[in-house]
Amino acid sequence: MGWQDFQDDYNQPDTRWHKGPLNLLTDVPGITVGHQTVRLGKVQTGVTVIQPATGNVFREKLPAAMYVINGFGKSTGFMQVEELGTLETPIVLTNTLAVGTAYQALVRRLLAENPEIGISTGTVNPIVMECNDGQINAIRTLSVTEETIQQAFAACTETFAEGAVGAGTGMCCYDLKGGIGSASRQITFDGQTFTMGALVLSNFGSLEDLVINHRAIGKELKKVIQAEKKVEKGSIITILATDLPLDVRQLKRLAKRTSVGITRTGSFIGNGSGEVSFAFSTANRVAHFAESAWSMRTVLAENLMDDCFRMTVSVVEEAVVSSLMHAQSTCDIHGKTVYSLSDALARL
Amino acid sequence: MGWQDFQDDYNQPDTRWHKGPLNLLTDVPGITVGHQTVRLGKVQTGVTVIQPATGNVFREKLPAAMYVINGFGKSTGFMQVEELGTLETPIVLTNTLAVGTAYQALVRRLLAENPEIGISTGTVNPIVMECNDGQINAIRTLSVTEETIQQAFAACTETFAEGAVGAGTGMCCYDLKGGIGSASRQITFDGQTFTMGALVLSNFGSLEDLVINHRAIGKELKKVIQAEKKVEKGSIITILATDLPLDVRQLKRLAKRTSVGITRTGSFIGNGSGEVSFAFSTANRVAHFAESAWSMRTVLAENLMDDCFRMTVSVVEEAVVSSLMHAQSTCDIHGKTVYSLSDALARL
Amino acid sequence: MGWQDFQDDYNQPDTRWHKGPLNLLTDVPGITVGHQTVRLGKVQTGVTVIQPATGNVFREKLPAAMYVINGFGKSTGFMQVEELGTLETPIVLTNTLAVGTAYQALVRRLLAENPEIGISTGTVNPIVMECNDGQINAIRTLSVTEETIQQAFAACTETFAEGAVGAGTGMCCYDLKGGIGSASRQITFDGQTFTMGALVLSNFGSLEDLVINHRAIGKELKKVIQAEKKVEKGSIITILATDLPLDVRQLKRLAKRTSVGITRTGSFIGNGSGEVSFAFSTANRVAHFAESAWSMRTVLAENLMDDCFRMTVSVVEEAVVSSLMHAQSTCDIHGKTVYSLSDALARL
Amino acid sequence: MGWQDFQDDYNQPDTRWHKGPLNLLTDVPGITVGHQTVRLGKVQTGVTVIQPATGNVFREKLPAAMYVINGFGKSTGFMQVEELGTLETPIVLTNTLAVGTAYQALVRRLLAENPEIGISTGTVNPIVMECNDGQINAIRTLSVTEETIQQAFAACTETFAEGAVGAGTGMCCYDLKGGIGSASRQITFDGQTFTMGALVLSNFGSLEDLVINHRAIGKELKKVIQAEKKVEKGSIITILATDLPLDVRQLKRLAKRTSVGITRTGSFIGNGSGEVSFAFSTANRVAHFAESAWSMRTVLAENLMDDCFRMTVSVVEEAVVSSLMHAQSTCDIHGKTVYSLSDALARL
Repeated sequence: MGWQDFQDDYNQPDTRWHKGPLNLLTDVPGITVGHQTVRLGKVQTGVTVIQPATGNVFREKLPAAMYVINGFGKSTGFMQVEELGTLETPIVLTNTLAVGTAYQALVRRLLAENPEIGISTGTVNPIVMECNDGQINAIRTLSVTEETIQQAFAACTETFAEGAVGAGTGMCCYDLKGGIGSASRQITFDGQTFTMGALVLSNFGSLEDLVINHRAIGKELKKVIQAEKKVEKGSIITILATDLPLDVRQLKRLAKRTSVGITRTGSFIGNGSGEVSFAFSTANRVAHFAESAWSMRTVLAENLMDDCFRMTVSVVEEAVVSSLMHAQSTCDIHGKTVYSLSDALARL
Repeated sequence: MGWQDFQDDYNQPDTRWHKGPLNLLTDVPGITVGHQTVRLGKVQTGVTVIQPATGNVFREKLPAAMYVINGFGKSTGFMQVEELGTLETPIVLTNTLAVGTAYQALVRRLLAENPEIGISTGTVNPIVMECNDGQINAIRTLSVTEETIQQAFAACTETFAEGAVGAGTGMCCYDLKGGIGSASRQITFDGQTFTMGALVLSNFGSLEDLVINHRAIGKELKKVIQAEKKVEKGSIITILATDLPLDVRQLKRLAKRTSVGITRTGSFIGNGSGEVSFAFSTANRVAHFAESAWSMRTVLAENLMDDCFRMTVSVVEEAVVSSLMHAQSTCDIHGKTVYSLSDALARL
Repeated sequence: MGWQDFQDDYNQPDTRWHKGPLNLLTDVPGITVGHQTVRLGKVQTGVTVIQPATGNVFREKLPAAMYVINGFGKSTGFMQVEELGTLETPIVLTNTLAVGTAYQALVRRLLAENPEIGISTGTVNPIVMECNDGQINAIRTLSVTEETIQQAFAACTETFAEGAVGAGTGMCCYDLKGGIGSASRQITFDGQTFTMGALVLSNFGSLEDLVINHRAIGKELKKVIQAEKKVEKGSIITILATDLPLDVRQLKRLAKRTSVGITRTGSFIGNGSGEVSFAFSTANRVAHFAESAWSMRTVLAENLMDDCFRMTVSVVEEAVVSSLMHAQSTCDIHGKTVYSLSDALARL
Repeated sequence: MGWQDFQDDYNQPDTRWHKGPLNLLTDVPGITVGHQTVRLGKVQTGVTVIQPATGNVFREKLPAAMYVINGFGKSTGFMQVEELGTLETPIVLTNTLAVGTAYQALVRRLLAENPEIGISTGTVNPIVMECNDGQINAIRTLSVTEETIQQAFAACTETFAEGAVGAGTGMCCYDLKGGIGSASRQITFDGQTFTMGALVLSNFGSLEDLVINHRAIGKELKKVIQAEKKVEKGSIITILATDLPLDVRQLKRLAKRTSVGITRTGSFIGNGSGEVSFAFSTANRVAHFAESAWSMRTVLAENLMDDCFRMTVSVVEEAVVSSLMHAQSTCDIHGKTVYSLSDALARL
């Protein structure tokens, strides 16, 4: 099957919603994304940073919720988001053994931007999310530094690359090359248009399970490429963002539906696959220093959640596939080829 | 009221259970604790490390559970403990802005001890727990380094100091000087004696609320010392350990009861007080590399849980008070005195 | 100790907040409470109903949250409240083995009031909460009928009795006679006064543990009355209501603090004690049939939660003690006296 | 497309595991299932009962866990299963407005079988699970009685019907006729063979979403039959049983994977779809009256969970499809045809 045919088949328009202009997370106004890739011999890793909104996110927080699909993971910040329902830092994605480094880089950044932290107000809750890229990356070298992370911040823009880049550099997905994938959708309620975007860091699944657009392509590919069956030590991180006015409870319901988008590509939420989703809204920002006893919030009617859920599933499914479609073949740490989806398809 | 009188009053024997020989967490066989204190001008902080068992904890994990009393905190590792029910690293306690540093120090340590991590097996889930010591410590200086943490490891022994030491160096509790506190109890079931130990890092509460042994001592003390009423930016971390054969669900039930021990000293679980408890058992260790399809575990009968719950409340309450009883008066970051309990009592 | 002295001691004014005019749950505007007591030989049980607001609660729901302190209980409705964050029926309290009967009575009532249920809209989520009154009541007789429940509805008023009445008829608390207790507080934010009310159904605890106003009165009483030490098969249900504009996440945080109010009276959350709390707000009602895509909600600033938490602890603690203070001595199912607190105090 | 072709296509053997001899939940030794169907004019409803094991389930409980996929439902018993991890009654499935009746029927049954309940021991935690069959059934008639439920108990056997029978009588699934579906799998670990069985009560989904065996059959069928697009007011209940020695935490992980099996048939977990799963093991039964301080339990190694997860997904997916394959066309409450899958396929 030709790559172009496959792409044409997959890229047919979503019949329910328009995709955003970039078909990326950054179609949600105010979001920017930056990558820093680290490649040096067997080191193939990196960092991806998501700036969730314009302005000072610590002082004007965003309603947020996390959902743990499978908790075999080391992402930080879960507890406080669960309690307070707010995101107050950018989100850093990187490899598992660099989580602490990313935490410190975020701390240093937030201290610089907010001189009151640790003095006249409390501390800060850094959000770091991770996958284990040890199949491709010499992860024990601990090659991500605080500088790598600051470089990713410096690279933040509205347009960003997908595939084997930034935190996605060393990730494998369905035994193929995975990494960063993204997509977006737009919806209109009462004459007003809203955007929902997803970004995934894909690093999970076995080739035999891969399904794209209802086609069990993984079983076909398994006949033509040699994918070592391993115990899953992967993960998938999903960032879901929207400018819809959703409250924390509704965002949590959305975050839960990301699992449907992921499993539509064939996986079964393996034991070793840490699967964590983080959802936030850029509407109804929450002041760190509240000036009055109460504030007004706009909240979407619950009976419109079905559209939001369908959109979530659709945008996450596309983001996962997009991570496969944008990656290139590479060598794993033992010198074996990890095929890109396009190279694998070319062998059919 | 004399300090000696107060101590005599407080130290009367528990009428239900014997205290362990050291009346410390380390009465549970196999546990050691080490401190490293960092004091330099306005820097007053540090690290406390708990080695939870003998042998290689990554290869022979411990059944474990966390319970979040109030999630305004940044402790790491919660998600995986919730999913898999095991502790696979030592536990590091430190200040909030050093969590990432501690994470990296644990990673480095575990990589050194386990050459298979990141190669033939997955990664590792570091447990780092924290309180914000910014009232006393110049926390923005980020003065805890990976070396500080390795020094705390080097200091691990069965006997350890309480009060303003290690991670407790800069902590305040009920507007008095807090820090590290510990206690233990022993219980006999079917002729076999078991130990339960608690260690707290206390950094929460307002003086007016303090209650010791049913005496509202905080209200009395508030008349004689000037405790600036502040919005709480504190926390309390509780480590509960036992050699009782409890499964993960039972350990979670125990972890939940730590909140009763804490609130018996008067607090109401304030908005800004991150309160997290971690419970583990040294019985029924879980092999990382399982050699057979199943294993046998001994599990305590559920109808004996009431004794375990009472013991939990008792040992945690004493640990909190013990943290107050062992600390010394010091100056906060603005040069104001933070009184020790003994110095405060002397003014009555 | 004289009962009057004890009452005077206990009833001293709360120094932080005014109590509401009735010092009952019904001080929150719109709430009414009704009891139906069933007494016939060894049958000593009943029903208490809480109408949470004026108007049609199914069509105009109330923001709500439940918190499970110890899940050894059979209350219904938890799952949907957790997912959707709304209360859409009155709340029925009764004995454990009458939960199904109460469910059916609520269904029948809601069907009558809402002809669209089961036709043009979905079903309804009845909230029934329970304690096991089997120590006093011949619970196996299943003596609560749907008619009992409808009678309790018919009795709903703003003033209501406390103690051994309605669902509280057969309940024991700290080995004394327990039952229904209630209290309220008022607070002012930005010049506007709000009310918080609590109602408990108390049926938990061992006499030796009872503490009132920091006095370990239970240990004293144990010397003068014979309280059979039994394994706890009790429970405590707490209803917390307010007209403060709190969202679901904030209500959940409040519900969690009810445990502090309860344990301040001495208990340790025993294994067999089902402890469940239900919190709702009468502000920001949620339309079942939404007419527009979004609605506006007022939400209290998070940094004011500490006052709300303190109020929660205070009002729940008083409600528990109030349940003891209003009950009369009675005989248990074996003919042994279960003392009221006042009769027990008279023996000191 | 011919029904036979479709069946042949769908019924191809699972390439990983053998199906059990009956391919039903009852392949797990000790389980029996009974239906009672209620059909009278517009009343089309019923009851399905699952006896989870031989012997007295109250005295010898089963390790169990529930997982809430979407909590828009009214099932009872969740709270206690979450706390104690045991199943102590049979499971009753019925329509939403009969939950209370089923609760009372279970209470009556358990009282009769266990004279100590409510006397020398506590009460009992009935498990009742439900879907809203109001599209087909005149649900407001409350036509299920306690006798209906006792009749279902009397009908319990190892072989049982699927489709529009018992609790499944009035259920719709993907706008087709749904109801009861079941399947089973067998697996061998260390030379010992174990069984996993699933039973679903299917009442969810929109036709356009239906996918069977990777074929988006729903979109095809939508062109030939008129399925009124409605807001989902459905549900799906999944019972998962096994004789594998799994502890409560592992059972919860299994219960979570049922959502993958369900969504593989195309749904996205709609807002109004109450989706609840209940998993139990017949191994390691837990004594109500424990005779010693501890017991021994066999627990499966965690690294074998992937096989269990795959089996869960497979058996649940087949059970959902099986519920569609066994149902017959019927009329809904407005006289419109609800097609069976086979009648719908015949129109292609």
